[in-house]
Amino acid sequence: MPLFRAAIIGGGSIADKNHIPALQQLPDLVDIVAVCSRDLTKARALADKHNIPHAFADAAAMYRQCSPNVVVICTPNSLHHPYTMQALAQGCHVLCEKPPALTATEARDMASLARQNGLTLAYNLQLRQTREWELLMRCKDEGRLGEIYHIKAHFLRRRGIPGWGYFTNKAMQGGGALMDLGVHVLDLALCALDYAAPAQVLGNTYDFIGKAGGRGLMGAWDPKAFEVEDACTAYLSFSNKASIMLSTSFALNTQADKDRNLEIYGSRGGVKLFPFTLHTEVAGELADIHFPYLEQDDIQLKNTIAFLDACQGKPSNVCTAEQGAVLMDVIERTYQSA
Amino acid sequence: MPLFRAAIIGGGSIADKNHIPALQQLPDLVDIVAVCSRDLTKARALADKHNIPHAFADAAAMYRQCSPNVVVICTPNSLHHPYTMQALAQGCHVLCEKPPALTATEARDMASLARQNGLTLAYNLQLRQTREWELLMRCKDEGRLGEIYHIKAHFLRRRGIPGWGYFTNKAMQGGGALMDLGVHVLDLALCALDYAAPAQVLGNTYDFIGKAGGRGLMGAWDPKAFEVEDACTAYLSFSNKASIMLSTSFALNTQADKDRNLEIYGSRGGVKLFPFTLHTEVAGELADIHFPYLEQDDIQLKNTIAFLDACQGKPSNVCTAEQGAVLMDVIERTYQSA
Amino acid sequence: MPLFRAAIIGGGSIADKNHIPALQQLPDLVDIVAVCSRDLTKARALADKHNIPHAFADAAAMYRQCSPNVVVICTPNSLHHPYTMQALAQGCHVLCEKPPALTATEARDMASLARQNGLTLAYNLQLRQTREWELLMRCKDEGRLGEIYHIKAHFLRRRGIPGWGYFTNKAMQGGGALMDLGVHVLDLALCALDYAAPAQVLGNTYDFIGKAGGRGLMGAWDPKAFEVEDACTAYLSFSNKASIMLSTSFALNTQADKDRNLEIYGSRGGVKLFPFTLHTEVAGELADIHFPYLEQDDIQLKNTIAFLDACQGKPSNVCTAEQGAVLMDVIERTYQSA
Amino acid sequence: MPLFRAAIIGGGSIADKNHIPALQQLPDLVDIVAVCSRDLTKARALADKHNIPHAFADAAAMYRQCSPNVVVICTPNSLHHPYTMQALAQGCHVLCEKPPALTATEARDMASLARQNGLTLAYNLQLRQTREWELLMRCKDEGRLGEIYHIKAHFLRRRGIPGWGYFTNKAMQGGGALMDLGVHVLDLALCALDYAAPAQVLGNTYDFIGKAGGRGLMGAWDPKAFEVEDACTAYLSFSNKASIMLSTSFALNTQADKDRNLEIYGSRGGVKLFPFTLHTEVAGELADIHFPYLEQDDIQLKNTIAFLDACQGKPSNVCTAEQGAVLMDVIERTYQSA
Amino acid sequence: MPLFRAAIIGGGSIADKNHIPALQQLPDLVDIVAVCSRDLTKARALADKHNIPHAFADAAAMYRQCSPNVVVICTPNSLHHPYTMQALAQGCHVLCEKPPALTATEARDMASLARQNGLTLAYNLQLRQTREWELLMRCKDEGRLGEIYHIKAHFLRRRGIPGWGYFTNKAMQGGGALMDLGVHVLDLALCALDYAAPAQVLGNTYDFIGKAGGRGLMGAWDPKAFEVEDACTAYLSFSNKASIMLSTSFALNTQADKDRNLEIYGSRGGVKLFPFTLHTEVAGELADIHFPYLEQDDIQLKNTIAFLDACQGKPSNVCTAEQGAVLMDVIERTYQSA
Amino acid sequence: MPLFRAAIIGGGSIADKNHIPALQQLPDLVDIVAVCSRDLTKARALADKHNIPHAFADAAAMYRQCSPNVVVICTPNSLHHPYTMQALAQGCHVLCEKPPALTATEARDMASLARQNGLTLAYNLQLRQTREWELLMRCKDEGRLGEIYHIKAHFLRRRGIPGWGYFTNKAMQGGGALMDLGVHVLDLALCALDYAAPAQVLGNTYDFIGKAGGRGLMGAWDPKAFEVEDACTAYLSFSNKASIMLSTSFALNTQADKDRNLEIYGSRGGVKLFPFTLHTEVAGELADIHFPYLEQDDIQLKNTIAFLDACQGKPSNVCTAEQGAVLMDVIERTYQSA
Repeated sequence: MPLFRAAIIGGGSIADKNHIPALQQLPDLVDIVAVCSRDLTKARALADKHNIPHAFADAAAMYRQCSPNVVVICTPNSLHHPYTMQALAQGCHVLCEKPPALTATEARDMASLARQNGLTLAYNLQLRQTREWELLMRCKDEGRLGEIYHIKAHFLRRRGIPGWGYFTNKAMQGGGALMDLGVHVLDLALCALDYAAPAQVLGNTYDFIGKAGGRGLMGAWDPKAFEVEDACTAYLSFSNKASIMLSTSFALNTQADKDRNLEIYGSRGGVKLFPFTLHTEVAGELADIHFPYLEQDDIQLKNTIAFLDACQGKPSNVCTAEQGAVLMDVIERTYQSA
Repeated sequence: MPLFRAAIIGGGSIADKNHIPALQQLPDLVDIVAVCSRDLTKARALADKHNIPHAFADAAAMYRQCSPNVVVICTPNSLHHPYTMQALAQGCHVLCEKPPALTATEARDMASLARQNGLTLAYNLQLRQTREWELLMRCKDEGRLGEIYHIKAHFLRRRGIPGWGYFTNKAMQGGGALMDLGVHVLDLALCALDYAAPAQVLGNTYDFIGKAGGRGLMGAWDPKAFEVEDACTAYLSFSNKASIMLSTSFALNTQADKDRNLEIYGSRGGVKLFPFTLHTEVAGELADIHFPYLEQDDIQLKNTIAFLDACQGKPSNVCTAEQGAVLMDVIERTYQSA
Repeated sequence: MPLFRAAIIGGGSIADKNHIPALQQLPDLVDIVAVCSRDLTKARALADKHNIPHAFADAAAMYRQCSPNVVVICTPNSLHHPYTMQALAQGCHVLCEKPPALTATEARDMASLARQNGLTLAYNLQLRQTREWELLMRCKDEGRLGEIYHIKAHFLRRRGIPGWGYFTNKAMQGGGALMDLGVHVLDLALCALDYAAPAQVLGNTYDFIGKAGGRGLMGAWDPKAFEVEDACTAYLSFSNKASIMLSTSFALNTQADKDRNLEIYGSRGGVKLFPFTLHTEVAGELADIHFPYLEQDDIQLKNTIAFLDACQGKPSNVCTAEQGAVLMDVIERTYQSA
Repeated sequence: MPLFRAAIIGGGSIADKNHIPALQQLPDLVDIVAVCSRDLTKARALADKHNIPHAFADAAAMYRQCSPNVVVICTPNSLHHPYTMQALAQGCHVLCEKPPALTATEARDMASLARQNGLTLAYNLQLRQTREWELLMRCKDEGRLGEIYHIKAHFLRRRGIPGWGYFTNKAMQGGGALMDLGVHVLDLALCALDYAAPAQVLGNTYDFIGKAGGRGLMGAWDPKAFEVEDACTAYLSFSNKASIMLSTSFALNTQADKDRNLEIYGSRGGVKLFPFTLHTEVAGELADIHFPYLEQDDIQLKNTIAFLDACQGKPSNVCTAEQGAVLMDVIERTYQSA
Repeated sequence: MPLFRAAIIGGGSIADKNHIPALQQLPDLVDIVAVCSRDLTKARALADKHNIPHAFADAAAMYRQCSPNVVVICTPNSLHHPYTMQALAQGCHVLCEKPPALTATEARDMASLARQNGLTLAYNLQLRQTREWELLMRCKDEGRLGEIYHIKAHFLRRRGIPGWGYFTNKAMQGGGALMDLGVHVLDLALCALDYAAPAQVLGNTYDFIGKAGGRGLMGAWDPKAFEVEDACTAYLSFSNKASIMLSTSFALNTQADKDRNLEIYGSRGGVKLFPFTLHTEVAGELADIHFPYLEQDDIQLKNTIAFLDACQGKPSNVCTAEQGAVLMDVIERTYQSA
Repeated sequence: MPLFRAAIIGGGSIADKNHIPALQQLPDLVDIVAVCSRDLTKARALADKHNIPHAFADAAAMYRQCSPNVVVICTPNSLHHPYTMQALAQGCHVLCEKPPALTATEARDMASLARQNGLTLAYNLQLRQTREWELLMRCKDEGRLGEIYHIKAHFLRRRGIPGWGYFTNKAMQGGGALMDLGVHVLDLALCALDYAAPAQVLGNTYDFIGKAGGRGLMGAWDPKAFEVEDACTAYLSFSNKASIMLSTSFALNTQADKDRNLEIYGSRGGVKLFPFTLHTEVAGELADIHFPYLEQDDIQLKNTIAFLDACQGKPSNVCTAEQGAVLMDVIERTYQSA
């Protein structure tokens, strides 16, 4: 019998395409016992599609009847906090979708309760599972980068305001490009600096294109209902003088449709993450090291495994509750600075 | 008889390769009457090479004997202020090499005296004369960019710490990569925002590689005598929420030997400066506009002409004394923030 | 209940792969009620495959039993005229495959009867539905091209004589490369000139390779049964001095396997259609405008919709009966000139 | 003592840069004895520069004093006929710049007189001397092309209206792009068809851009003084059904700055001239034959030698008087058709 | 009723993916009557999957019950000899997987018995069926290569030691890269020289990487169980002074993941096989002939047909028993030389 | 006064373009005192051109009058031995052009006499001075390659039979491509294996193209006077099982005009020399290390310095007399094997 009984909260595409398939590839470790969505029809359809025994609209009923010990939270951002608090109170480990919450306070509460209850709370920031990121951490640990002092992180779309879902709704999502896209590369950048909290944050947000409308590459959006930032830039300065430059956009008049990368500059070597390239000196000459045969993994599956490892007290590189609180703190300070 | 009588102060390569040849292409407008250098041998050699009648070690003697009405200042940075003040006091228009001075106070003094004496003081920031920059300004004026709200500006070298001159000497140069390279792209970025002064500046400077030594691509430098920053990053935030991200380096573990560019993002269009590309919408579709036949001009000659136009009260796009003061203010605040 | 009851005449691949699937994507608008082919076995197989209720060898019987109000004609070219005349006589709108007919006289007859009976007759020239052509027409309407005065249109294959079907049979097809391939780009070129009839036509046809045989890239053909042109070139001159250069081939000793494009030269801008590029002046400089994110549509579906729009009196860019008559006139004059 | 005594008529750049240097590389064969220009100052300057003994404004005087037996004519087009007739009357062989003359009648007169006087008259169409053209003719002679039935020839500039000289003056030049550029590729195309006279010619000329003005890539031109065609397209049809498509422009809204090429289609092989590629079948498969090591020759020198060979009755591939008459006939018929 | 009744011996992937599907595409010619594997479960599963009537663990029983007249041998290399001898003794034609056997003596025995019994024995070296090889042989036959005097043949993998099967087991496979990969290109090279036996062979084998371990690109292997060569290089010299350079590897510190090619140098032309390019002279100039439209065939199917053609006494390019004996002789001499 | 007095023996292009300019860049170290050539006119012209005081036809006279202590030998190969023996007998250090001599015996004699007389004899194999080779040796010394076990070395020309000089004269040069080109890469390959003598050598030489004639890329050669090999291939096997594959040609039906490279395979890393790339593992992944900023040095100057260093007993990487003897031994054994 598997160690874990998992419940899914949230009936959207991220549950359907990412979390349920990942969990179902681990039948020896975990059983999915229920799907829970405020819209019972959606919950039921999802449960049927994936052969999950139970569907609920009411989470409390789900906890009573199904006794899960693991919960995966796939709801709009505004529900991350309440559902996580409830799950932790029910004694469940929690894997929560990103961003951690709407505010730093929420994220700190969630981390406190997890710590207090001796439970694992983790966030689904799967880029940590790419081969590129694993290689970066290995290069860092082997001293190939020396001291890391500057990072450029960006996640840009040219006209990628989603034409579906709640992405432009401020109340439900808490923000736009930074909450949805920037959070991924910001998490990696903070990892590279050992998740220190920045001493200073200065940033700005924009909504020119979102509010003006135009040709979309991810469907058409309604400029009148556009309430979030379509772009955000920020500079983070750390007490050891390290710095991060962050840029993220749903919409920006730039060349590439989609562009996501990090550049990590250290005293002995610098890395461009995609495709992974290490700029350094070898045998006394300037050298560029390429890794032409890095594989593509199923990063959702790997992150799900990393979460379940953490639940079992095994080493894991999943984004922790404490890291999530720092991450939300940076996001919040960026919005405040703007 | 030409309108202007020019004196050159400083006997180094920038006088020899840039300013004297440019002035001598304008014989109907200007005569070079003297070269002045603290090292009289250098002054004399330079004068002989270019058929300039007089050479001096003492500037005061030069003013007495030659009565110039235009002075070009090509000295180490620490001498920009004293020589400019002297020249303005002598009633001369001044074209001063970049950066304007060592501090914002110096630059403001210089601007005050120029204004007070009704003279033209300008700085030799020649990238303004590239066809690309002229086209950018035309696109801006025609409304093709809409409102400009974010600019990325960088001037990076991988291992380009000069192995000659005073570039790593703090007292003479006042700083490193920002003073020597970053100043060019910062000037353009500020131009694009109508030279507003930023509300906030946050930045950092680094010297890991400069102090550690390594393989150089512009000669070999002495890591023990390395006193300036080898890299600098900064974020400028303006009261209208526009922002500039600035990166500059003499040495950085990055791919390209040399990389200099600006990206200028506006509400209606975005531009990458080199090669000039405009990202916008045309006929309802996302469009990239390329200009395959932009010419390469002699930008020093054009900047010298622009300076002389300003001296004559004609319209000119040369960097003014007031702009130079703002520029030094930003540089100084960046160093203070670091 | 759908507005239209459609019958398919002709049981070949174009019915199977293009027209039936397109119509079946529009279930609210149209029902396919019958398939009709001189070979009843083919008709029945096709009907079964697509769940179409009836199959006929005899069109008259089909009209009696099924009362369609729309007919799609997918037969060899020689049958376009008789089947279209019959369908119009039966009060049906007609979407006829290209080329319109064997002769200009046939095409004019067909247009007359359609007009007389108040019915829509249209030809299936789907390249009009590409995003590129829509963008071209929008650029034209916005004045970005100025006056269009010269067009190069080509549709070339290196060794693409089809090794199946009737493509080399003169009696059934009326011609070769011009009838099958050139007709597409000629239609677009004429559209760009508002479908004026040319004042003069001069052209030639060739059959060297078709009659000699050789290595084929679309199967092997029988050189002894090769009765049509393998290549055709022509020049069309219009009363306003505009001109079209047309080249088309089944077989030609050229580089590309397949090469289909139009270049449209106007006084203010010129366009290369695939990939769409606009050559013009922007901000006083020569500029090339690229559209990197044009999508690929299902052009058959769009043309079927355009035809049904026309049937309902809505605006439509489908090739009309009158345009088809001009098109056949140009083709006929080209053959006569050769 | 050299066989030939040459006089140069015309004092412009083509004499200075092309003809005089070529002749002076052949000192064993030819002596330049005089330069003649209506502007005596120009004639004298040119003679001095190249160490030519005599300079004249009056050709008759030149003939009397210098007794040349070879004349090279480098004047504006309108003077080709009178100077050639005079030279032939004086018993001189003539190498005349292209185009042959202003009209077909002039060119026929010139050919008649040459034939009558037993003298060589040739035109300076140097593309015949490229390695590519020599290889084309060799491939043709070896039967690698089979029967040639279609040729596309173009010589296009995007914005190459010369900002100097008489190029836009109708009276002096007789025409624009066709007379100056198209003539080169038309000559080659006719060569490939053994210089048969076409049965029919249909063409058009345009002047939209020339008259409207705009950004120039060969200096700035005056749109108000623009009297010639900026573009010309034509179709030539031959009695054996072969055809030529010709396009030429000083200005056209196309991609390339300059684009000059021929495609020559034969029954066994097709050639793209620059870079030379032969499309054919080898060992039963479709093959493209590239010639990566073709050399670049001094084509003016080779054409001068070819002319002098012809003067000596040796085999020569220079453009003959009779070919020049056919060439002018085609040009004239194109203009008449437009 | 089909001419041939085939039995498959060996139940691995090569039977499943290559031989059975190829035979089943030829139902008019051959029936598969049985699968035989020492592991009866595997045999049965394979038979079921492909609807083959019988499965056996015991080959003798299979011959008794099923009376095949064709046998395909897909076992580990060490069983090629015993199973082939048995099949030939049973009067069956044999298609045996490569390499022919473990030793030259085995291969000669097999050829002797086949000749003696009047049966066809052939080896499955399918690269002979590529369009490239067919074209090479045609070029050779047409004299386009002149006399072939040197061949470079290589089949290299960077880290392609298979992580499955018996590939690193010396007893079962007889060798490593040469037996598994090099054999393919060596067969082609020998073909090009009309399968002459070399006068001298000099070579070496290596196992540095195989025994050291490392990152694999075809799964992970066990360095402790690595018993074969990971790389082999050899030089073959023939009595007519022709030579072959052979290189093959499972693992080598080279650039490409996989690299397989032949260069064949002749007195009149040289060929690089993939992509096929012929370097020669055409019309007196150095020429490279490319064949951009060579198709990809199903080379297993073609080789199976070639084998069955040989069984029927038809012309065939399959690798014969005699050629297989020469091939094994070269392999054995290479190992002895190492 | 400089330490060395140098005499040049041989009046050809290698003296004029390589050795004299290199020596004259080292005026503090060496004076050129005489040029000696059997053709006194050539000697005198060369001396005059380079301001060398004396010219001789008779070497003995030169030694008497000029007392050099360094001799550079630039004669045809057949004179390397006699002139070197004479120079050593005169007490001079000798830098001799490659190849060392005509036979291994000659080279051993030369090495013996140098050793006996305590003089430096070195050969001018300048590829050792490339940055690439220096980096290779550094990588080898740092253990980045592990144990080197296979090397591919080639120096190929497609049609580079020199149309001048004695290159095709067997008596004067001793051989063709191997003596002139292959010797360079063979020297490097032997260096990489610490200049061990091979245990076995197997090779062949060819002259098909040289004797047949054809299109040349380095002038035209006379096929009737072609006495040497136009191509040579060989395999060298060493007692530690390392191996070298060598290919060299003046003429070969291959793609590139000129192609010169080494691939050096070791147990830990492999190198392609031009452009330098190291294939290895980094941080547990397969990695390719590029060195994009390697400089181009004046390799003749560096080799001349290395020779003079050796003369002074300093460390030097110049090719020694002993190495030259091994090199000639390999060349001789290759010719014998062919």
